[in-house]
Amino acid sequence: MSDAPISSPVPSSVPPPIRMTALAGIPAVNAGDDLAQLVHAAASASGLSLTEGILVVCQKIISKAEGRTIALADVEPSAEARRIAEEDGKDPRHVEIVLGESARIVRRGRGVMICETPHGMVCANAGVDLSNTPGSDVAVLLPVDSDASAARLRDGLGALGHTDIAVVVSDTFGRPWREGLVDVCIGSAGIAPIADIRGSQDWMGRELQVTTMATVDQLAAAAGLLMIKDAGIPAVFVEGVPRSGDGGLAELLRDPKEDLFR
Amino acid sequence: MSDAPISSPVPSSVPPPIRMTALAGIPAVNAGDDLAQLVHAAASASGLSLTEGILVVCQKIISKAEGRTIALADVEPSAEARRIAEEDGKDPRHVEIVLGESARIVRRGRGVMICETPHGMVCANAGVDLSNTPGSDVAVLLPVDSDASAARLRDGLGALGHTDIAVVVSDTFGRPWREGLVDVCIGSAGIAPIADIRGSQDWMGRELQVTTMATVDQLAAAAGLLMIKDAGIPAVFVEGVPRSGDGGLAELLRDPKEDLFR
Repeated sequence: MSDAPISSPVPSSVPPPIRMTALAGIPAVNAGDDLAQLVHAAASASGLSLTEGILVVCQKIISKAEGRTIALADVEPSAEARRIAEEDGKDPRHVEIVLGESARIVRRGRGVMICETPHGMVCANAGVDLSNTPGSDVAVLLPVDSDASAARLRDGLGALGHTDIAVVVSDTFGRPWREGLVDVCIGSAGIAPIADIRGSQDWMGRELQVTTMATVDQLAAAAGLLMIKDAGIPAVFVEGVPRSGDGGLAELLRDPKEDLFR
Repeated sequence: MSDAPISSPVPSSVPPPIRMTALAGIPAVNAGDDLAQLVHAAASASGLSLTEGILVVCQKIISKAEGRTIALADVEPSAEARRIAEEDGKDPRHVEIVLGESARIVRRGRGVMICETPHGMVCANAGVDLSNTPGSDVAVLLPVDSDASAARLRDGLGALGHTDIAVVVSDTFGRPWREGLVDVCIGSAGIAPIADIRGSQDWMGRELQVTTMATVDQLAAAAGLLMIKDAGIPAVFVEGVPRSGDGGLAELLRDPKEDLFR
């Protein structure tokens, strides 16, 4: 088997390198904090100019800034939450919050709840993380609208001089069939979430077929290499990835009617 | 909700930037080609030294070098392949090859076959791609053992002076629930596929809980940002990602008995 003979195997344009920089120095975030200001201060302290690139921000600091947290001590679990918690060996208050954040339970078993969120995402525990701050156990919920969160941060950074950027909000999800977690995008602003290159031609002049890449998920995963969970790197600046268009989470979510696993 | 007061919010060590470089100039690959030589020549021509980093290589050129291709013209579809092809609007010869590469069909519907490969991976069409080289339609199969493929390439590059590297073989997979494709790892050498940081402490001294990151999948996705399908970039060199240990695909595959979606 061989490809047809070709005169020049080298593509006409080699993409430039991609550079990803960890943004350290963002302090612990509290409800009401202005994330754009915190990111701006951290970037300035690092001598990092956030222009012409993509800022990937972990969901946790966005949720905290937006007050999307619940102290477990304030939660009164329902009978159903108690029953599930008993079966699964969980904190019934955590389960209660998960149920409240779920449009429906897609699967439950082996101590795991795979939930569909009101946004339409499918993930463990409806994305509700427990944050064990000493002395106060807190549940961190997903933002209500991560696209809007991304747009607000993008606008705020733009007003502070960080222009021509996109913002991707990332969270860490498990997958069926594969072990380990990966970061995915749960909201974005200033970038088309999916690169649809069907119908375009490859470098040998052949038409590409089914190739719609989830660019923002690849960006979230890439940034995740620097964003070691809870290690104090809540944002990564990515330079060198071409972007165009705009859009949001809805484009990333498969229509349940088209889904073979729901 | 607020975090406990902290004296220093900045982590003690900020990870260095990650740099990803597209490796262009690898010619069309044929069965029997020495991939290490081809990669070496392309790197040399680009002035790129492949040391202290991770080379992500797309599955397609590995499969082609290993002769894992079948001309559709040589395939005689079975009755079952013809039936499925008729129902799904596919080429029965493609379906025949997919069935031959599948340990079992996990789901079939809406024109899609989600298969479990003999390796234990779950993906569309058992990873069998159609390559429409003008005049000869060819199916490209997954490597028989991508860990071994990665190790051979790593050893070959080492012998050519490219030392202290890991190799990750990537392929482009769909996901349940989410639109768009992402690149994942289907084999590796010289790197622990999963980073298990459970039990370690975060930068505020709290013990981390469930955090096993699929590092090699994050690497594959990251490299995919440069490896636009069929665009002539079959390999990407990633610098700046700490790595340790070793391992292979088996660690990435969930035990079917533990899986809620099989």
